[in-house]
Amino acid sequence: MPESHAARRATLRDLLRAKELDALLVTDLLNVRYLTGFTGSNGALLVHAGDSPGAEQRTVFCTDGRYLTQSAEQVPDLERLIDRPCDTALAARASKHAASYRRTGFESHRVTVDGLDTLTDSAESVQLARAPGLVERLRMVKDDGEVEALRMACAAADRALADLIGHGGLRAGRTEREVARELENRMLDYGAAGPAFETIVAAGAHSAVPHHRPTGAVLHTGDLVKIDFGALVDGYHSDMTRTLVLGEPAEWQRELYDLVASAQAAGRAALRVDTAVSEVDAAARKVIDDAGHGEEFLHGLGHGVGLEIHEAPALAKTGEGRLAAGMAVTVEPGVYVSGRGGVRIEDTLVVRDNAPELLTLTTKELVVV
Amino acid sequence: MPESHAARRATLRDLLRAKELDALLVTDLLNVRYLTGFTGSNGALLVHAGDSPGAEQRTVFCTDGRYLTQSAEQVPDLERLIDRPCDTALAARASKHAASYRRTGFESHRVTVDGLDTLTDSAESVQLARAPGLVERLRMVKDDGEVEALRMACAAADRALADLIGHGGLRAGRTEREVARELENRMLDYGAAGPAFETIVAAGAHSAVPHHRPTGAVLHTGDLVKIDFGALVDGYHSDMTRTLVLGEPAEWQRELYDLVASAQAAGRAALRVDTAVSEVDAAARKVIDDAGHGEEFLHGLGHGVGLEIHEAPALAKTGEGRLAAGMAVTVEPGVYVSGRGGVRIEDTLVVRDNAPELLTLTTKELVVV
Repeated sequence: MPESHAARRATLRDLLRAKELDALLVTDLLNVRYLTGFTGSNGALLVHAGDSPGAEQRTVFCTDGRYLTQSAEQVPDLERLIDRPCDTALAARASKHAASYRRTGFESHRVTVDGLDTLTDSAESVQLARAPGLVERLRMVKDDGEVEALRMACAAADRALADLIGHGGLRAGRTEREVARELENRMLDYGAAGPAFETIVAAGAHSAVPHHRPTGAVLHTGDLVKIDFGALVDGYHSDMTRTLVLGEPAEWQRELYDLVASAQAAGRAALRVDTAVSEVDAAARKVIDDAGHGEEFLHGLGHGVGLEIHEAPALAKTGEGRLAAGMAVTVEPGVYVSGRGGVRIEDTLVVRDNAPELLTLTTKELVVV
Repeated sequence: MPESHAARRATLRDLLRAKELDALLVTDLLNVRYLTGFTGSNGALLVHAGDSPGAEQRTVFCTDGRYLTQSAEQVPDLERLIDRPCDTALAARASKHAASYRRTGFESHRVTVDGLDTLTDSAESVQLARAPGLVERLRMVKDDGEVEALRMACAAADRALADLIGHGGLRAGRTEREVARELENRMLDYGAAGPAFETIVAAGAHSAVPHHRPTGAVLHTGDLVKIDFGALVDGYHSDMTRTLVLGEPAEWQRELYDLVASAQAAGRAALRVDTAVSEVDAAARKVIDDAGHGEEFLHGLGHGVGLEIHEAPALAKTGEGRLAAGMAVTVEPGVYVSGRGGVRIEDTLVVRDNAPELLTLTTKELVVV
């Protein structure tokens, strides 16, 4: 959708003018994708900050010869430069028309120390100014097309898990690795380009390790099985965790589950426009603290999700900023009882003016398989 | 194998002393893995340059609390700092004992402009000096353990392809995507942690696109089918391309195949210690140029392979440096006849004092399925 990319560039221009920049050299590949739709492995973008229609005409996209055809299809609305490397080619371009690009920002949170040397050599006639994180700031709030991609990614994960359970794929005797692989394959069946990250399947005591990697360990009756996984669709990542029990749950498992489910509900309820992200974390954390398990909730409550699996904002004690409508975030408290087992429950949601929109639709009742 | 990591650190120390550095702050995660064996997602290393046994004692590894257990197992031989972020924690450590770390190098090809600010703030009492690419230089030459990992990765790919063909998985009517997925699943059966990169299956006219992504397009009798894939084993990547024909090959297909096979053989024959990498490229390119297809060989001849799928050295026209024993590289000429079809043949090999060691063992005869 070239219109939405143009709209994003227009929003970025407002930000650039507020920073008194004439242009921004975008070299982070995901930021380039966000602003243009280009999905190749090499590209950069020089965004002019003007507020006239001419600003689009002075905005130049660059990629190399491998992407001649692809970039013509994906970026039909901007001038294209075919060169390599793209960052210096665009810096040289700005320098050649220095009057229009006098103060050009660069992504100082991404450009390396050596890379800046090369850029400076190519951009002799313009002033290169640090401009970290500007596109990432825009990316926090998702537009309709992005939410639709997230929705499809979440649906692929929901359907894969439903199929896995429905076909008896979660049973004693299978290994963590087998379960993870079946889940990933089923997501492909539902349109995922791949898993959003390495699928976690953690059974029994392994469920107490927050980021356990699946092993050849076998699932046993009575195990808590924690499954943290997601799908990648159109570049967007879904993220969901469910914890199930194989066979009849023990009393302690049910208690642990109910506690985490309450904390997760409290976190979701706190997802309101203008709430400080640290307060969302606090809302869920309080439930776990009050039950005396605060020491066993070892990580932040959640994170933004989109073109990256982890992006801003961080829903954590030390997180900064406030929620805005359209932010896509996870809410994923966990309690991990070392050597015994752990429970984590995680949804992907979109912050809305009223209640948040839930994208991961698998039940959060304790599922017994 | 902690011994091989210690040996790598000893070699690095020689390099550091030659650069008049007292230490190197290693922040690239693959470089940290190479020097310590640590496979987590957050870690850094401060390598002291001394040539006494005390240098190991002044070498400090850092990771965060998530990796407390894992790092104790993987890095038993170094002092560990548990902190976050690791780069500034180690910079502060160097600064605190500034007399031993007076001139500390940092990886200026990886550290960002903003990152250097933070480092500099933490390392007040030491001089931070640019030191790009030092560990990457060592990584070009593989030790026995690394070659063994590459061998296993290549074997997983060989066996997966043999199974795919043997079970009739390559046949008219299947889609490129189905074939790619079966191949990736079969590699997992043979011990791969995953594919080394996104598998390329390109049938018919698609085979003329060097880096085609598999689509829903169906394989037809008479198609050239180009398959470029690899396995990831213990962090090491294999890389192999084979081009097959579905049904009886046409005359032009056979000719194209024979040409690329000759060029590939010439490239392999040129893999000798002390040969300039540009000459290896030239040896293969000459065969294709002489046949009048030079314009249709659009990329470099090959690349180093190891902890990254593409690493130094580049076997290309503009590549710099000479081959050394132990370098692992690909040799992968291709000729792409636009709209018709293309052939690429690629092996992964290790440069040896005599003939190179071939790691990808699938035949390079034209396979007709």
